[in-house]
Amino acid sequence: MRTFKLIIEYDGTDFHGWQIQPRVRTVQGELSRAIHHATCERSTITGAGRTDAGVHAVGQVASFGSGTAMSPAVLQRAVNGWLPRDVRVRSVEEAPSGFSARFDAKSRTYHYIFIRRPTALWRNHYHLVTADLDIRAMRSALGELIGEKDFTTFTTADDRSRTKRCDMKRAELVETPPLLALCLTADHFLHHMVRAIAGTVLEIGRGKPWNMADILAARDFSRAGQTLPPYALYLMSVRY
Amino acid sequence: MRTFKLIIEYDGTDFHGWQIQPRVRTVQGELSRAIHHATCERSTITGAGRTDAGVHAVGQVASFGSGTAMSPAVLQRAVNGWLPRDVRVRSVEEAPSGFSARFDAKSRTYHYIFIRRPTALWRNHYHLVTADLDIRAMRSALGELIGEKDFTTFTTADDRSRTKRCDMKRAELVETPPLLALCLTADHFLHHMVRAIAGTVLEIGRGKPWNMADILAARDFSRAGQTLPPYALYLMSVRY
Repeated sequence: MRTFKLIIEYDGTDFHGWQIQPRVRTVQGELSRAIHHATCERSTITGAGRTDAGVHAVGQVASFGSGTAMSPAVLQRAVNGWLPRDVRVRSVEEAPSGFSARFDAKSRTYHYIFIRRPTALWRNHYHLVTADLDIRAMRSALGELIGEKDFTTFTTADDRSRTKRCDMKRAELVETPPLLALCLTADHFLHHMVRAIAGTVLEIGRGKPWNMADILAARDFSRAGQTLPPYALYLMSVRY
Repeated sequence: MRTFKLIIEYDGTDFHGWQIQPRVRTVQGELSRAIHHATCERSTITGAGRTDAGVHAVGQVASFGSGTAMSPAVLQRAVNGWLPRDVRVRSVEEAPSGFSARFDAKSRTYHYIFIRRPTALWRNHYHLVTADLDIRAMRSALGELIGEKDFTTFTTADDRSRTKRCDMKRAELVETPPLLALCLTADHFLHHMVRAIAGTVLEIGRGKPWNMADILAARDFSRAGQTLPPYALYLMSVRY
């Protein structure tokens, strides 16, 4: 049995998220089907991030075991041939036996991307914010998230993570007008965590006199800002 | 009667182009309907560029006459309120009486945008080209297009322009990996002209030993490269 590591891009617009579910279209479901067609084997696909409905990925990582004799390059072409156009396998490589895209991940990077002017072209890909923003206040609030912290404030009761402590390695705002990206890197993320942080930082940018350290210490979801919509969230990359 | 000038962005994916037609969804049709709802008047909308089905616009310009008392800002909000999400009015201003977005235009700028790696996210917005390209040969061929020339080679029999002579002011390739944009500015464009030029320049980039000056001089559509698909073409701006 060989183990393969795949880097995957998808447009989340028409998916009910990553995780396979009966009777709805999911990325894991489409990928399982494509790998089944390509290899004639039923494989269990493991993903690094279980993205929600509507969330996109530029660099999702998946792993699976297979007895196929195909080279990684041939496997990539075969799987892409069976995938719908809104999912692409960007690369395939052979990984050490037992490699898990999920459990071996050291960190994940997500971007939540705001667009600062009304747009028709990118309406399904960026979140519109035309209000004036205090970027310095937003950056200062993000600084409070760095380090190993309890992120209970930014997740909901349905989160099933082993621990609410996450090691936040990077929390930055990157401006490339008309886009403004919130870039977060952590060892793992809780359910809805990026979107709840994005909503909280946005309120601070709009002038709410909130103290991020207090909000975090409260461990209370009602203290967070609104959980922003999924279509502006991207799983950018996973590091091993 | 006042005259208004609108700058419009749209995602061409789900439109049968700009021009109003019975029983199909067009940008001019949606805009006429929205302006009718907003002003309670039937206005004739004139567009600077009659984009084809699937072609996008970042800076299409339209004009219309109206007896409305609304300010440009209020009119913009009202029209946007009636428009579907894939069309946005980016700005409204009052123009001199008799202003025509079409006949007063001095130049139009179109971009045809290639993407150099397979993509799921941007599959409806950029044209995939993974082949190695001779960028220098492409730039040299584009140089032959500059000036007032007869562009009959790059249009089809159904073009109804008054003249096939266009004054090409700019013809450049701009690289911002993974994107490669062909940027053309001319006083006017013939039907399918940008997409036929893009297809010709692409063949030259792939190594065809074609001479752009000869192709242009032939005034023969069969000498042009393939007319590339519409979804990677953008009407960027119009100058008056």
